[in-house]
Parts: sequence; C-alpha cells; structure tokens
Amino acid sequence: MTYRAPVDDIMLALKTAGGLPDLIERGIAEGLDEATVRAIVEEAGKFGTEVLDPLNVVGDRTGSRLVNGKVETPPGWKEAYDAFVAGGWNALPCPPEYGGQGLPQVLATIACEIWNSANLSFGLCPLLTQGAVEALNAHGSEELKRTYLPKMISGEWSGTMNLTEPHAGTDLGALTTRAERQPDGTYRIIGTKIFITYGEHELTKNIIHLVLARLPDAPAGTKGISLFLVPKWLVNPDGSLGTRNDVVCASLEHKLGIHASPTCVMKYGENGGAVGYLVGEENRGLAAMFVMMNRARLAVGVQGVALAERATQKAIAYALERRQGRSARGGDGMVPIIEHPDIRRNIMTMRALTQAARAICLATARELDISQWASSEEERNRAAARAALLTPVAKAFSTDIACEVASLGVQIHGGMGFIEETGAAQYYRDVRILPIYEGTNGVQAIDLVTRKLPLENGAVVETYIRELAETAAEVRASNQPAFGRMGERLAEAVNALADASRWMGEALRRNPEAALAGATPYLRLFGLAAGGIYLARGALACLREGQAGTNALPVALARFFAENLATAATGLSRTVTEGAETVVDSSPEQLSA
Amino acid sequence: MTYRAPVDDIMLALKTAGGLPDLIERGIAEGLDEATVRAIVEEAGKFGTEVLDPLNVVGDRTGSRLVNGKVETPPGWKEAYDAFVAGGWNALPCPPEYGGQGLPQVLATIACEIWNSANLSFGLCPLLTQGAVEALNAHGSEELKRTYLPKMISGEWSGTMNLTEPHAGTDLGALTTRAERQPDGTYRIIGTKIFITYGEHELTKNIIHLVLARLPDAPAGTKGISLFLVPKWLVNPDGSLGTRNDVVCASLEHKLGIHASPTCVMKYGENGGAVGYLVGEENRGLAAMFVMMNRARLAVGVQGVALAERATQKAIAYALERRQGRSARGGDGMVPIIEHPDIRRNIMTMRALTQAARAICLATARELDISQWASSEEERNRAAARAALLTPVAKAFSTDIACEVASLGVQIHGGMGFIEETGAAQYYRDVRILPIYEGTNGVQAIDLVTRKLPLENGAVVETYIRELAETAAEVRASNQPAFGRMGERLAEAVNALADASRWMGEALRRNPEAALAGATPYLRLFGLAAGGIYLARGALACLREGQAGTNALPVALARFFAENLATAATGLSRTVTEGAETVVDSSPEQLSA
Repeated sequence: MTYRAPVDDIMLALKTAGGLPDLIERGIAEGLDEATVRAIVEEAGKFGTEVLDPLNVVGDRTGSRLVNGKVETPPGWKEAYDAFVAGGWNALPCPPEYGGQGLPQVLATIACEIWNSANLSFGLCPLLTQGAVEALNAHGSEELKRTYLPKMISGEWSGTMNLTEPHAGTDLGALTTRAERQPDGTYRIIGTKIFITYGEHELTKNIIHLVLARLPDAPAGTKGISLFLVPKWLVNPDGSLGTRNDVVCASLEHKLGIHASPTCVMKYGENGGAVGYLVGEENRGLAAMFVMMNRARLAVGVQGVALAERATQKAIAYALERRQGRSARGGDGMVPIIEHPDIRRNIMTMRALTQAARAICLATARELDISQWASSEEERNRAAARAALLTPVAKAFSTDIACEVASLGVQIHGGMGFIEETGAAQYYRDVRILPIYEGTNGVQAIDLVTRKLPLENGAVVETYIRELAETAAEVRASNQPAFGRMGERLAEAVNALADASRWMGEALRRNPEAALAGATPYLRLFGLAAGGIYLARGALACLREGQAGTNALPVALARFFAENLATAATGLSRTVTEGAETVVDSSPEQLSA
Repeated sequence: MTYRAPVDDIMLALKTAGGLPDLIERGIAEGLDEATVRAIVEEAGKFGTEVLDPLNVVGDRTGSRLVNGKVETPPGWKEAYDAFVAGGWNALPCPPEYGGQGLPQVLATIACEIWNSANLSFGLCPLLTQGAVEALNAHGSEELKRTYLPKMISGEWSGTMNLTEPHAGTDLGALTTRAERQPDGTYRIIGTKIFITYGEHELTKNIIHLVLARLPDAPAGTKGISLFLVPKWLVNPDGSLGTRNDVVCASLEHKLGIHASPTCVMKYGENGGAVGYLVGEENRGLAAMFVMMNRARLAVGVQGVALAERATQKAIAYALERRQGRSARGGDGMVPIIEHPDIRRNIMTMRALTQAARAICLATARELDISQWASSEEERNRAAARAALLTPVAKAFSTDIACEVASLGVQIHGGMGFIEETGAAQYYRDVRILPIYEGTNGVQAIDLVTRKLPLENGAVVETYIRELAETAAEVRASNQPAFGRMGERLAEAVNALADASRWMGEALRRNPEAALAGATPYLRLFGLAAGGIYLARGALACLREGQAGTNALPVALARFFAENLATAATGLSRTVTEGAETVVDSSPEQLSA
C-alpha cells in the first residue's frame, strides 16, 4: 500500500489551525496563495510517494550498518537523499540570506509530515539538519554561519545534535564531555555522546555536529554547559574540506524500530581532541541548544502526525479489501470489514486523532511564523509565548496518539497485523521512539505545567483557553443538526481544562509535587480540548462554505471527536485535581514491594 | 532483571476476587488451605524464575526455525519443557480420572500467569494443550479420551487448535478444509490452516491437532463445521506411535513478537488425506471448539496479566536504579527516577491495572470452578452464566491494559527502552498479539454486548452490577480517611456502567448497529468499573485485617485506581450512549476519502 499525501486534510488544517489566509494577508507567507500552497503540498506528496515511500520497507529490513567505521545506509538511500537535495526540499524553511527558500513554518511543518509519513527513518536526517540550521542561525557567529549554513541549507552537509551521555539523558546538567580552550580561539572536545541520530553516514560529504560540553572552569550543572560546532571534516578557509576531525562513530544501537536511521555512539577526541568552534557564548550553550530542541520538539510532534497518518491509510486500505463476516444491515455475503461498526469506530478514532494532532502542530508552527515575522514586537512576543505554551502539547499529545493510532492499525489487520510482512507492525515499532526522544513526554508535561502555565502569570494559557471557549460557544450557537452534541461536549472539555489549569496554578504554589503528579493527565486533557476545538473550527469552516452536511468528513470527524474522545476530558480533569494525593504519598519502597 | 512471582499480590487476588476461602469451604479446592496454596504459588514461581525466565531473551533472539520440515525451538527449550513435564506442572488443572491433579481453575490461572510472565512464548505450548484437553474431555468419545488424554495431561504430547484459514479468521463459517468419511469410521482431512501455534515442534513425541473441517454434505456456514482430532503420529491400539500422519508444517510466520513460539502454516492431506477422528457430533464442531476457545480466551487474558506484571517489574527495577534529576523535595544529588512523581504515576498505573486485570481473570476462573463443582445445578448454571459474561472482559480488558502497561514500561526506560538489549521492547512486541488472537478484542466486545448482556434477559449482568454497587456503597460507608474519594468515584463508575448497560439493552432491540458501534468503549467501561471494585475489595480485606493505613499497597492502589483511572467511566458511558450516531452514519466511501 503506497502512501499518498492527504492533501485535503492538510489544506483544511492549514487554513484553520495553520491560519494560512491570515499569514498570506500579513505578508508572512509572501508570494503564496492557496493554489500555490496546494501545488507545493502536492509536489511534496509526489516526492514522498515516488521516492521515499518505496524505501521504507527495505530501510526497516536492511537497516543501517557500521562497516569499518563507516555507516552504510540501506540500498537506494543515497540516491533518494541526492534527489531530495536536488529538488531543493532541504532548503524549504531556511533563511534566504544563506540560500534557503524562507517558506513559512506552517509549510515546512507539512513538508516534514510528508517526508516522515513516507519514510520516518529517512525524514530524521533533514529534520536534524533543520534544527542545527536554526540553532546556528540564531546563535552562531557570522563567520560560522557563512562557512556552514549554505551547505547545510542546501543539504550538501547534514547536522546532528549531541546532548545525551550515558549518565546524562533528561538531566543534561550531569554531562561530562570536556571542552578545552586553544590558543587559536578554537576548542578541543573530548567525550562520548550516545543516541546520536545520523551521527555518521555517507549521504553527505560532511556532517556538522552540534555538541554540548563543559569547559574546565565551568560552573556545575546546566549553567556550565557550552555549545560547540564540531565538523566531521575540517573546512579550509576556501570552503573546501580539509583533514578529518577527531570524531568517530564507535557503534550503532540495535533498536526496536527506525532501523535505517543510524543511532550512533560518538567518540570525540580519542586522539587528542576534536576541533570545535564555540556557538554563542561560553556556558550559555543550553539556551542556544534549546532553540534547536524546541524546533525539534515540534518536528517530533509532526513525526507523530506523520506516522498516525501512515498507519491510518494502511488500515483503511486493509479494511476496504479484507472481507469477513456479514453486515449488521443484512445481506448474505461477506463484506469488507470497514462495514462493521466496531472497525469504523477504530478508523474514525484514527482519523480524528490524526487530524487533531496535525492541527495542534500547525497551530504551533503558525505562532512560530508570527513570532518571527509579525510587524509589531508585542505581537511577536505574544506569538512566541503561545508557541512556547503549545510546543510540549504538540510534541507529547501527537506522539502519544501516534502510538495509539499505530496500535489500532495493527489491530484492524487482525492476525496479519502481527506478521512483519504486512507492514503495520513496522509503524508500531517505529512510532515508539517518538514519545521518548527530544525530551520524554513526561518531561514535556512537566515543562508545560512548570514553565509554560506560569508564563505572564498565567495570562498566556488563560487567553488561549478563552479562545477555545469562544469556539465551543460558536458551535453551540450554530444550532446545526449535523453537529449533534459537539458544542456541548467541547464546552465541557474546555471547562474541564480551565478547571484543571486553575488547580495547577494553585498547586504550583502550595504543593509542587502534586502539580508534577498531575502533569501527564493534564497534558492529555489539554490536547483533547485543543484538538477537539481545532476540528470544530474545521467543521465551522465547512459550514461557512456551505458543506456542513453530515456527509462532510470534517464535520463527521469533529463531531465524532467531541462525542467520543473529548468525553474523557471531565474525568481527566478530576484525575488531575483529585488524584495526585496517592501519587505524592506513595514511596519507592511501597511501590517496589 | 529476573522475574519473581508476585506472591503477595497473587494471594490477595486469590482470596478476594478468586474467592479462595469460599472454594475451600465448599470443598471445591479439596485438601487445600491458604498455606498450601501459597506454597504451590511459590513453587511455581521458583520454576518460572529458575527455568523459564532465563530462556525468554534467547527465545526472542533465536526464535523457532523450520529446518527440513522440522521446527527447531531455541536452545534450552526442550530441556525446560522436559523439566516442566517432570515437575507435573502440565497436569495441574486436568481431570484426575486421566491422570490430572484436578486443582481448581483459580490455581491453574495463577500457574498460567507465572509461566507466561516468565516466558510468554514457552507458556503458549501448555496453554494450548490445556485447551485441547478441555475440549476433548468435554466432547470426545471414551475411546479418544482413553487414548489421548493421559499423555496430553502429562505433557508427553501437546495439543493445538486449528481454526483459521486465509479467508476464514474471525468468520469461521467461511472455512473450506474438507473432511471425508471413511468406511472404517475415521475421516480424511484435506486443507490448509494458518496461524497454528506450536503446530510443529520436537518438544513432545506427538502433537494432537484439533481441526475444524467441513463434511461434503454439511450445511453452509457455521452450522456445517465438524471437529476432528488429527494426531501427527497415528497411535497404535497398544498406545505406541505408529506411522506419520499426512500433516506437515509448510512454513513459519515472521512475527513482531513471540519469536520462539512457532506460528505454523499446516497442510493437511497433501498425500491423500490426514487421518482424523470425529470429536463430538458431525456438524456440531463449533460448539465443541468453543469449550476450548472460552478457556483459551481466559488464558489469553491471563497472558495479558502476565506480561503486564513482567513489564511492571522490569520498569520498577529500572526506576529504582536509574538516577537522573533532582527531587522536588529538595536535595542536591541525582535521585533514582522513581522519586519523580510522574514516574510514580506511571508505576502506580501499571501496578493498579495489572492487579485489576488479575482480579477480573481470577473472578472468571472462580465462576468456572463453581460452574463445574457446585453441588446444586442452579448454582452451577448461575456461575456458568457469570463466567460467560466475564470471559470477554477478562480477555479484552486484560490484554488491552497489557499493551498499555508494556508501552509505559518502555517509556519509563527512556531512550534505553527503545534499545532491544534492554528487554523492555521485547514485552512491547510480544504483548501485541494478545488483543488479536483467540478472537480480536473487537470480537470480544461484540460477544459481550450481543451474546452476554442478553443472558437471562439481562438478569446476569444486572445482578453482577448490583454486587459491584454494594461494594462501592460499603467503601463509602467505611469512612476510612485512607480511602479518600474511592467510594465516590467507584459509585460513579458503577452507575456509569449501569447506565450504559441499560442503553445497550435498548439499543440491541431498536438499533443493533449503534450497540455494535459502542461495544468497545462499553467493554472498557465494564473492565474499569469491575477492576476498581475488585481492588476495593482487596482494600476492604486489608481494613478487616487491620492493615488499612495508606502505607498498605493494596489500599493505595485501590484508591489510585478509583481516583485516577475509574474517573474515565462517566465519559466512557457518555461515549457509549451518545457517540454511536456518527459511527453508524459514516460510510466506507466517506472514511476512505
């Protein structure tokens, strides 16, 4: 079954959650109109379908391999990467001053979805280069930018992020990789990094590692971390490649999924020290890296959307083809299993969750665009704050539902779903990394509760929830029979979110452990309320365009979401506000008894 | 990390949900007392820990292989199986008249949990033999029983169930394997069966296949299916093995998980027809097979408990050992991650769901024991009806939560969870078959709604819910501060179940498609309400024994479940009773657009 970009779903989400018309009007999406955007989406979809999709299975089966210190990607990988670069796809969202196309984040988000739907293991390579470009562009010196950005933006060179060490994962303050100042203003980097995606490969002529390390006189903890650019090959003043830097891939991990994406153990400085260049200021590396991490967090959320979409397409194709059982509506013959209501519930759940997650990611990307390009500083700051609020939800909600959707996809295939040849199992394996990397979803929930809710004394989240409530009210006021109980259920969900948010504000002051204990269900509640509202906005858009019959899929999915999934909101709010005590009171001794 | 049987959790569940004291009093668990039962559980745990657990990883990595028509199980497998048989474990729940130990189902259920916790791929072999023994004992002729049962009960021979064909999975009526009558009263079986677990192997000297097939003059559909016993090796009148029967394993499936369990394509009668013996009556095979399937459904639910337990143990071990981040309670050093409230929430979720599923399975097993051994027919019938009601819940709820728990287990490991060497990923892969085989969980939900709710005009489910409500009332009346809002939340959950059950009764009459559309969330609701109540009964038992402080783990878990998980009940009830319309109204064309 071949992946097809869901162009209609994407365009609807771009127009509503992504605010495309508004971005066009503001001149942020300069030179774009709806037809051009659709053409770009279709073209990206074509590349995904024709070039990346055919490599997805071989990538899983062959995997990347370490042979004599070099990583061999699966057959066809190099050619696909070259075609990707030649098509200009790598430069899509990058700054024009260094050769990028400067397209808005909402479009980059959709392109990212398409690459990762077609081939998650492949999509990771440009995803990381993209993050490295952002960090370098935001914090690098002009010289570093001139030397590295053009080739990273074209895709001739790729980028990586090097944070994790065996004893420093979530807790970056514990990292021990050393950086030593050199008389020539460069640094020597010495240490081991693990879980480095595309840390080594032959797809590009050079690999630009962004590496967190600690200077000898650095303060302890996260305040003593600096960021360095460490190229695999040193670059001569004329831009040509010089000598090999002192960095090697020591081994690859044997993973549950994304087999084609090389996950490397990287050794820096085993022969005296790898040459590194400071990015930003000494001891301020974490702030610089956070630029990269925040973009990457949104991108991982988008990977969740991507895999959910892919798993859904495959499940629908199977449900249309597989015949089994009779219809409850009568008739003698076996019917395609999509005729069975229980299967249709699963498919609606998959489609509704996918579209909701897509909307949340695009809403986040939209705020990033406004935060970068709006004319007034106030507007830029407001958008930046909202992007900060939504990023952990985009990352965690999308990847959580992606796991659920991929699992439902296996389930719809029945016994065949458990057989690797079918392909549904690959998505179930691949998807499982998404709630883990770029900050586990637990970390996202804690970030949302402890750092994002307090923004501007709670005004950021309050304003956001108020807007959600306005949409719920609009749905109720519309009195559309095709909307069923959509307005009622969404109003309840938004109220539940408001209640839980108020409780969180209180708890952060009087009982921080209780707030931490409720963070994960709170984030889920946030995602359900927001996702339901974005779908409702899609349904309202259909209504305005005179397509609000029950036959309109966006209406059916919005209503389904509200009546079947957002129904969890009130219970989740209760869990958050009343359920923490047992968690706080529990002890490690008790739980491990 | 080595598996240890959770003896305390098991004993509590046996005493409360399993009704062990009552079974002992009734003489059903003859000769047993609590101390003896505990000793058996500990002994089984020892076997699991020492013999089966060490083979779990090698089983996953090596897998079973088909070499020259023979299936080679992983190294150590044969020795472990021999030890299993020598220990008398295979005979545990089997009828004493053929050499079994005749222990009650509640104990067999616990033993089954332990084998499958220690090694799911291994546990499948005796699990299927057990089902075949039950079917043969219930429906076979005296001659068949005398010939086959003693050796299947000892474990010298194993058993299989052969239902599925490529175009007949859930829909058994579509099966086409032929059975031809022979003048000597035997039959010749010709056809292909797929997904046959342990269809071929060298662990036992003979394999006894139970095969569904169709006679030439059989009515169409499920009313024309007969059940046959087809031994791999024909058995001479003196019990010795004769010639090889005409049945071969044509290939093994390459699966997502349970790699060591051979999943076979079996070809019957490629050389004229495999010799088969009728079990029960012609064209009544499905009824006979249902005996096996119902036991197997409970056993698969128990496999869910088993894997959830295993994943939980591993996650706790990791959370105690892995240090990362500082405590919210202050202090400078890195703490074991179990100190973090978000991790503790996950662990409590895992433990509470596992114990709830265990209780539901044991409650089902208990009814099976009473249905077999109670002195009055009325009591036997009542228990049989309740076992029928609970079986789909035991199967589907336990295996659904097992997938969730295994996924949480991966999550707690962070990046290491995605690395195969860690082991958490194996559980995530292995567990995924459980909601699929022995009737998908969707089929279980439909069985619950369409066949079990109508039992005795709804009286069976009503009585059950009434008993749940009594417990909720007892919890509220206890006024225990340590119980928090347990009584309130459980009362709401049971009310929600009662509402949804009433709605289902109505819907089955006026709008069967709506009932089918709500079946899956209804089953979830059932499991949450029942599971919460069983945990509460455990907490009440602690209270009666004077151990109801918040430090008592059963109290903490029961309260956690009620306040954090059962909170989903009201929303689920709403989903069932108000959410079906969009599903019923949706069309395949719309959903695949």
